[in-house]
Amino acid sequence: MDQGRIEETVVEMARAARTASRQLAALPGSVKDRVLLRTAERLQEERDYIGRKNELDLAAGREKGLSAAMLDRLALTDKVIDSMVQGLREVAALPDPVGEVDDMKRRPSGIVVGRMRVPLGVVGMIYESRPNVTIDAAALCLKSGNAILLRGGSEALHSNLALASIVQDVLREEGVDPAVIQVIPTTDRQAVNVMLAQEEYLDVIIPRGGEGLIRFVAETSRIPVLKHYKGVCHVYMDADADIDMGVRIVMNGKTQRPGVCNALEGLLVHRDIAETFLPVVAAELRKAGVELRGCKRSCIIVPDMVPASESDWGTEFLDLIMVVRVVDDMDEAMAYIQQYGSQHTETIVTRSYFNGQRFLREVDASAVMINASTRFNDGGQFGLGAEIGISTTKLHAYGPMGLKELTTRKFIVYGEGEVRS
Amino acid sequence: MDQGRIEETVVEMARAARTASRQLAALPGSVKDRVLLRTAERLQEERDYIGRKNELDLAAGREKGLSAAMLDRLALTDKVIDSMVQGLREVAALPDPVGEVDDMKRRPSGIVVGRMRVPLGVVGMIYESRPNVTIDAAALCLKSGNAILLRGGSEALHSNLALASIVQDVLREEGVDPAVIQVIPTTDRQAVNVMLAQEEYLDVIIPRGGEGLIRFVAETSRIPVLKHYKGVCHVYMDADADIDMGVRIVMNGKTQRPGVCNALEGLLVHRDIAETFLPVVAAELRKAGVELRGCKRSCIIVPDMVPASESDWGTEFLDLIMVVRVVDDMDEAMAYIQQYGSQHTETIVTRSYFNGQRFLREVDASAVMINASTRFNDGGQFGLGAEIGISTTKLHAYGPMGLKELTTRKFIVYGEGEVRS
Repeated sequence: MDQGRIEETVVEMARAARTASRQLAALPGSVKDRVLLRTAERLQEERDYIGRKNELDLAAGREKGLSAAMLDRLALTDKVIDSMVQGLREVAALPDPVGEVDDMKRRPSGIVVGRMRVPLGVVGMIYESRPNVTIDAAALCLKSGNAILLRGGSEALHSNLALASIVQDVLREEGVDPAVIQVIPTTDRQAVNVMLAQEEYLDVIIPRGGEGLIRFVAETSRIPVLKHYKGVCHVYMDADADIDMGVRIVMNGKTQRPGVCNALEGLLVHRDIAETFLPVVAAELRKAGVELRGCKRSCIIVPDMVPASESDWGTEFLDLIMVVRVVDDMDEAMAYIQQYGSQHTETIVTRSYFNGQRFLREVDASAVMINASTRFNDGGQFGLGAEIGISTTKLHAYGPMGLKELTTRKFIVYGEGEVRS
Repeated sequence: MDQGRIEETVVEMARAARTASRQLAALPGSVKDRVLLRTAERLQEERDYIGRKNELDLAAGREKGLSAAMLDRLALTDKVIDSMVQGLREVAALPDPVGEVDDMKRRPSGIVVGRMRVPLGVVGMIYESRPNVTIDAAALCLKSGNAILLRGGSEALHSNLALASIVQDVLREEGVDPAVIQVIPTTDRQAVNVMLAQEEYLDVIIPRGGEGLIRFVAETSRIPVLKHYKGVCHVYMDADADIDMGVRIVMNGKTQRPGVCNALEGLLVHRDIAETFLPVVAAELRKAGVELRGCKRSCIIVPDMVPASESDWGTEFLDLIMVVRVVDDMDEAMAYIQQYGSQHTETIVTRSYFNGQRFLREVDASAVMINASTRFNDGGQFGLGAEIGISTTKLHAYGPMGLKELTTRKFIVYGEGEVRS
């Protein structure tokens, strides 16, 4: 497509999404759930079709020399399809957030005021590689009454279009405007720029991917962006902490799934416990293949630790690497977290009631924990049902974003002829 | 100041605000309330000082040939000071939103998850003329634990600086970092551009003023903006509506305070009631000096109505002018509101249970009302205590923004050593 044609296409899709969003906002929950469940069935029936389209992307990926890890993320295996099916059913089973009314109060003037939950309108989603995001995001948006305009990674285009077309078929069968979910059908980067300028038609942009993508979107977009930059999460081991609990929480945070945003990247240890705790946890981490990069004091206690360089502090390794620092007290730990953390997830391991309460109150992060693994910062684990991302900035949402975070609340007023005096 | 000096000053102030915001976030409510109440006292004691500084602005304004209305808005009369004092006391009396915890739930993993309300951090406020906004905004930000960086209208600079210095004196007396509230001490426009680029230090920008200012801020800012573009509010008079109630609601909406955003700008009348209702309401409006601009059908029923031109529909007159249109049914009224409304406030006057419910559900506006004046869309009237503005976009807040809308919620987790399996 030439540039003019791309602009025209994207603007037209955004406009169609806005129109479709109006019908969707008023749709009863039963219809939305039927679409979700029917899509789950159709994904299973259409495994061959999905496989053929996915193979086009995989073949092109091999041609381009994508890494095995990249190809793995791209592949719509039976297991991935099963998980999309499962996800659709789980979202269908969640309560409909739209139309929920609360805070109803009678005011002195006589009017009764409340707040009704309504969809945001149209969500623009920009993401990389994994094509299953197409279905996961579409399910959450549909359930929360939002139309969605998707721009996936160029290497997954055929897969994304195939998945969206299955949802669109189901929407048509149920009498719903298929523009409720659309995938932008070009890999040209210009399409992203056009998309980010459609503030008339799009209400929010959710980027998912590397920090570079998210910064680009945040700086370019004229539409509000829900951002999740990175997860540089820490555990602070307090002076009196339980050693075994500390080891368990550190091991889980660092090794259970090192490539995700709620994995642990740094360990802060109170000096009073450092000599007892560090050798034990270091031995366990070493067994699991974790490389430790420590401050001077840590390296004296655990001599085979690599001395950390300045650039290691605050790095999101997403790998079996972790920094370690011995601190004089909790204030130093909190100051470190403020300087090097990413406002994602921070945990204190402590026996002290007072230190726990203070840590919860004073640490600024989307999730602050006492005696629990950072790996719990997740929509499912927190009881939101499913998540469309984790916000590490404070406007609109802070932390995992579920169905409610894809809605807003308008004020409703029941009057009997009241006027303002 | 030269451009380099301006940039340096604004960046330094933003950085100081960020530092001060950390102390403020952890401050007990009793200290915040003491600052508010002591500021109220000091404003009364310092009437002479405030008057002298305000006179500098007024004299410059007269020199520049500002209109009487502009000078009026600029004047810090005893009445205006009394209202600031009253506002400070009211905000002090509101419950502290910071630290409020709700939605605590034990999850299947054993962790207990809840959400704790925390300040946004640093609010940047850009506003025009009225210097009392300096105190009103500072009070709401202080109470909600946010530092505030203020950029007022250039014609009010001396007044704004004087008011801020009074709050800063009180903050110092109470041992609080005075950078919690700062007024940018230059009238150079460049300062606004610098301010809007401080995404590292500022969390949100709230512009208050004309549509031009707000559009400029929204398009320039790299920081999220809470926007209130304009208020084009309507009353839809349903087929079976009570005539007297309709007249009362229209008169209140249009004439009680025509220059504000929740004033009425358009009247939609079902054709079945047009011939009975329009002559009555038109006579009342005429008595109040309101000019009516009508569609063809309205002009036939009320012959002295001015025919509306295309540009009248959707105009925010902020004056004793209103458009009138006869519609065939509620669908046409809702389609009109969607096309010409500004998502601010929309009211239906009806006896029909079903039409009322459908209007509430389907109309997209920050406040949707049945049988009540649009003038009620206000933080005080809705029970939020006080408001810092009205958001007409959906991210973060939709409608009047009170103390809670100046906060966000982080997740907190109480664990006993749980890890993720």
